[in-house]
Amino acid sequence: MFSKILIANRGEIALRIIRACKEMGVATVAVFSTADENSLHVSLADESICIGPASVSDSYLNISAILSAAVLTGAEAIHPGYGLLSENHKFARLCTQCGISFIGPSWELIQKMGDKDQARSTMKAAGVPVVPGSDIINDSNEAHKKADEIGYPLLVKARSGGGGKGIRLVERSEDFLNEYALARQEAQNTFNDDGVYLEKFLTKVKHIEIQLLCDRHRNVVALGERECSIQRKNQKLLEESPSPSITPEIRNKMIAVSRQAALTIGYENAGTIEFLMDTDGHFYFMEMNTRLQVEHPITEMVTGIDIVKWQIRIAADLPLTFEQEDVIIRGHAIECRINAENPLLNFRPNCGTIEFLHVPGGPWVRFDTLLYQGYTIPPYYDSMVGKLIVHSKTRELTIRKMKAALCELVIEGIDHTSQVQLDILSHPLFIKGDYYTDFMENEFDKPLLN
Amino acid sequence: MFSKILIANRGEIALRIIRACKEMGVATVAVFSTADENSLHVSLADESICIGPASVSDSYLNISAILSAAVLTGAEAIHPGYGLLSENHKFARLCTQCGISFIGPSWELIQKMGDKDQARSTMKAAGVPVVPGSDIINDSNEAHKKADEIGYPLLVKARSGGGGKGIRLVERSEDFLNEYALARQEAQNTFNDDGVYLEKFLTKVKHIEIQLLCDRHRNVVALGERECSIQRKNQKLLEESPSPSITPEIRNKMIAVSRQAALTIGYENAGTIEFLMDTDGHFYFMEMNTRLQVEHPITEMVTGIDIVKWQIRIAADLPLTFEQEDVIIRGHAIECRINAENPLLNFRPNCGTIEFLHVPGGPWVRFDTLLYQGYTIPPYYDSMVGKLIVHSKTRELTIRKMKAALCELVIEGIDHTSQVQLDILSHPLFIKGDYYTDFMENEFDKPLLN
Repeated sequence: MFSKILIANRGEIALRIIRACKEMGVATVAVFSTADENSLHVSLADESICIGPASVSDSYLNISAILSAAVLTGAEAIHPGYGLLSENHKFARLCTQCGISFIGPSWELIQKMGDKDQARSTMKAAGVPVVPGSDIINDSNEAHKKADEIGYPLLVKARSGGGGKGIRLVERSEDFLNEYALARQEAQNTFNDDGVYLEKFLTKVKHIEIQLLCDRHRNVVALGERECSIQRKNQKLLEESPSPSITPEIRNKMIAVSRQAALTIGYENAGTIEFLMDTDGHFYFMEMNTRLQVEHPITEMVTGIDIVKWQIRIAADLPLTFEQEDVIIRGHAIECRINAENPLLNFRPNCGTIEFLHVPGGPWVRFDTLLYQGYTIPPYYDSMVGKLIVHSKTRELTIRKMKAALCELVIEGIDHTSQVQLDILSHPLFIKGDYYTDFMENEFDKPLLN
Repeated sequence: MFSKILIANRGEIALRIIRACKEMGVATVAVFSTADENSLHVSLADESICIGPASVSDSYLNISAILSAAVLTGAEAIHPGYGLLSENHKFARLCTQCGISFIGPSWELIQKMGDKDQARSTMKAAGVPVVPGSDIINDSNEAHKKADEIGYPLLVKARSGGGGKGIRLVERSEDFLNEYALARQEAQNTFNDDGVYLEKFLTKVKHIEIQLLCDRHRNVVALGERECSIQRKNQKLLEESPSPSITPEIRNKMIAVSRQAALTIGYENAGTIEFLMDTDGHFYFMEMNTRLQVEHPITEMVTGIDIVKWQIRIAADLPLTFEQEDVIIRGHAIECRINAENPLLNFRPNCGTIEFLHVPGGPWVRFDTLLYQGYTIPPYYDSMVGKLIVHSKTRELTIRKMKAALCELVIEGIDHTSQVQLDILSHPLFIKGDYYTDFMENEFDKPLLN
């Protein structure tokens, strides 16, 4: 086992990793920007090193500063958390080159899954269903022919795009050529790469993902699924496990496909395969996240497995001590992300000082947060300030528990999103489990904006 | 189900009950003394009523004020928590007479188990092993003969005693007559009742207790055991479940005996049978607690069963939805009581204002507390300010998790006992599970007092 780990992140996930390390008897090094010197992750780590000014690019994305901190403190491994450098294959490669274990998969795999087109073809070759579409097409007539085959509506997507950018929706065949030309031009201008491909546009879809844990000894275990269809502008707001709308057959198929794919590509450490599932239960590969995810706690609650500790153990070359048959899903878990945003002002982020904080408690209630009373939220970083996670026997009881916990949560000094979460949990479509990725747009954004 | 419940208690247990009610959709009424107007249980309940001045006898033991509050607010049931009126059979009886459900067993049973001598003979008749001893003996020669039969050391105990009072230890036969006479005289002076009985004095014993849940339909389920041998002056400090030193055979026997006793006496609601177990695994009835216990959370963690919710459901006449075979003990849980006491000053209680509070977090960590940052602890009540509870796969991992959580806990403004808990968790005898009820006295009190 490592004797010391550097956590190349901030906020609640840095705390989460520090806590896992403490339980494992591993010393921790926090890194922080000048704006974060009063942050909890700095206080809770055994050592901490300032890596630059407030701006993310100067600090938490500052690869040389972070690697220097690791070398300086004698850290044997780096946990990148989520976001920031967690899917930066150059960083992962440099860690390895510096003789520091990167807690995650190999840099080659990160790179492969980071390229949307390559990820798609890799997964397709590994037997994972992908959204019907094309490879990169440079000839407009050929593209039009293929588009008519796939059917409308469809998307023209830039190979180098991401985060909702570089995508054009085509509704009818007669619009295709014009939109295709615009898409390529836009891609060229934005990404300096005019490579585009076609993809069937799925409506009424759910976002369902499979959590994987893979050791270095070809043991691949799936920890069930998470449903993350409650999203706003592609940002997840609420996640639950199990999904209320997946049959055991589909679950088993999704798990089998995901495990097979992980084996085929030689995946290692924690990873998540994200799928879109239509109303007929057909599911298609969307992307693979080669890192820990924000919503990992709900999987921990229903499986009893500590994902962060396993990430560390796997990186230290330890084999999994359980097999697929040992993974039993017990009860139901929900996570509500609490963001420092004002839902009445179009979710405008805000910051300020926490005047009063009361965290909900009682059995099977967990609040992973960077907040403390008196803390001033700096304006430079993500607006998520906490994740409220509850676990109970059934979905209905879990919804009740979450509502009680949200009502108990008090964060004074900033605007935040707990009321929106309560509204979601009380919505008839949510209660029925009859919700899709367009739920927030259809049910919340419009009324709130008027 | 009840529509409204009054909680006749304060502190963390009032919060615990309010939370259970909120999840069940039951309205809550808090009662409070003038010293508690800024307490969390007052803020979190739906309604709250002041029942008197700071002194416990004028407020939380003020039966007429509490019953008036219940009638005034239309509460259909009263949850007494632990301590205070929870084992007061007169209070339970008055609740019933006022048409209010007392969330606990019948007043007759509370009375029966509250009388140590009657409890002992009732349990003996129900097949529970009791510590070898006598009935009430008024003749000194007869008593001496019986004492020689039982063997020394033995205890002369006042029928009306309790809380460590009215007990004399006799080491040798030649001291008996003198001590016996002194015990009777003392009992007469203190309790106005000179009835005494003899009991074998057990050394090297463990305190092990069985948690029971009994509905009104003769379903009796045992939720495993708790070991509570870490005590100081008969106050439990740290509890764990399962016990590290009980074999499956002894556990099954203890459970069978406890369930049979509960059935025989017609017990209802949550209750605990406390045993003393010697080094040979023989166990003897000590007492039955006819109420919720402070340490109930560790049983909740390892069984997944919410004891407080079940107390409420049972009082509302609902049957248990699980049977003994459904109770599966998973992993290991420990509770550390955090008291506002200074271990370096002989555990002298102290109070003050909480200048800073940081509660440990992460998976399977629970802190049931009445504290919030800015709260001023009033000097009138129990010194326990929180219960830190953790749950993990094995005892070893649970000890590690508890140590990490204790290190993370920050309570500034008062002295408290988290360091003592860390010392206990690091003690070789504790780690081996080789500890008895005299552990604190032998290993801690003496060195700390010198």
